[in-house]
Amino acid sequence: MKKPAWVIEKERAKRAASAETVWLFGLHAVRDALMNPARERLRLVVTKNAADRLAEAIAEAGMEPEIADPRKFPVPLDPGSVHQGAALEVKPLDWGKLRDLCQTGPHAPRLVLLDRVTDPHNVGAILRSAEVFGARAVIAPHRHSAPETGALAKTASGALERQPYLRVKNLGDAMLELREMGYTLIGLAGEGETVIDDLTPDLADRPVALVLGAEGPGLRERTRELCDHLVRIPFAGEFGSLNVSNAAAVSLYAVTRGVKGT
Amino acid sequence: MKKPAWVIEKERAKRAASAETVWLFGLHAVRDALMNPARERLRLVVTKNAADRLAEAIAEAGMEPEIADPRKFPVPLDPGSVHQGAALEVKPLDWGKLRDLCQTGPHAPRLVLLDRVTDPHNVGAILRSAEVFGARAVIAPHRHSAPETGALAKTASGALERQPYLRVKNLGDAMLELREMGYTLIGLAGEGETVIDDLTPDLADRPVALVLGAEGPGLRERTRELCDHLVRIPFAGEFGSLNVSNAAAVSLYAVTRGVKGT
Repeated sequence: MKKPAWVIEKERAKRAASAETVWLFGLHAVRDALMNPARERLRLVVTKNAADRLAEAIAEAGMEPEIADPRKFPVPLDPGSVHQGAALEVKPLDWGKLRDLCQTGPHAPRLVLLDRVTDPHNVGAILRSAEVFGARAVIAPHRHSAPETGALAKTASGALERQPYLRVKNLGDAMLELREMGYTLIGLAGEGETVIDDLTPDLADRPVALVLGAEGPGLRERTRELCDHLVRIPFAGEFGSLNVSNAAAVSLYAVTRGVKGT
Repeated sequence: MKKPAWVIEKERAKRAASAETVWLFGLHAVRDALMNPARERLRLVVTKNAADRLAEAIAEAGMEPEIADPRKFPVPLDPGSVHQGAALEVKPLDWGKLRDLCQTGPHAPRLVLLDRVTDPHNVGAILRSAEVFGARAVIAPHRHSAPETGALAKTASGALERQPYLRVKNLGDAMLELREMGYTLIGLAGEGETVIDDLTPDLADRPVALVLGAEGPGLRERTRELCDHLVRIPFAGEFGSLNVSNAAAVSLYAVTRGVKGT
């Protein structure tokens, strides 16, 4: 008897987790990963057509692609994934240690900390925004966060290869370490008493970590307590709340204006 | 022989387009539509469990629900849609005429115009942000835009019921009409010479329409020419670009700070 799709899916996820490898897919994501010298690559599976379109990147990476029949693409991807005939098995990027990555100095770095944001599309979009606004890193706990997957890579539209996405053991401990390093920890919370605009002038020259929680639950108790300030994004409507990636983009914009945030 | 899924899908889309009805799904979206007195409702299909959870909203709407077996949910939804046992067939909301909806007065309204943004998740997130920042309306052409669908409603997380999403015949003509009504038309474009921050102080008391294009193609030629200003969001990174819903959120925030934008 054939195994049901969800069993196959679950087994695959388990294998991937233990092997710690990820299948990236889609021309854009695969090209970016091929061009990234820091990326450890295992297998490249492409259709003839995709091989032609990626020829330059494949040569740059020095990989021998496995050519596949587009009708029987032999790679374990999520159903509905638009792979465009290209898939690349990779190891997650190693961004080193928190202390090294986030060290302060003449600049005032910006960080984004994510408290249990599990949706890969939201995290992918946040990596894009973090890159655009020059944030040093996006930081999330190992557990209960969106893992580095093909879906995340695709939404990140290249940013996954360039924008540090650091997974830490414990977010609260990371917050304590960052505060000790001189960071001001700013939690986004609907009930925050301060409007983010009112705080930003004081932060121009200081290292800042923005802390965002998942929609619905928001920041956990300990996360909230460890923040130096709880701020809200000013809003005009009676109802409604921003999607978490939109909240991240707006708050990054707010704390980046007029700052050398590299 | 059984029709392939894509044929069934296409026929359904065609039927829906001609009948101009939409299936909303998911507890949140269905509840919001049941509670909206302006919403024309045709059929409500729920599981016993969902009927209990929606009891109050169903009573408020005065509808007779069809109770369905959760294992054979009899509603034509996209595969993978998380319907949570609730689906409601509705007519799109009628937001009236551009001139009435967008009339200026003592306030300085903000609008978002979308030039061929077709992804329902992006448009849904933009409706949410528009509501949060008190924008008067989101405006898009009838063709080549995300139609009001269940997927859009779900991403909009309730905002579809409250935030005007007006479809117009021709976006350029709408821009001309809005300019005549006193709106300043601001196009978002990576190559814009002005940074949005530099423009916003001058706009505080004036009606503003933000114009955003799809990722990739950006604004079309005529759209671009009809804008009063082309502005960009300042960014620090060498690479990267914001997702369109993030760009909309940031620019709405930028033109809303300190403004009564209702």
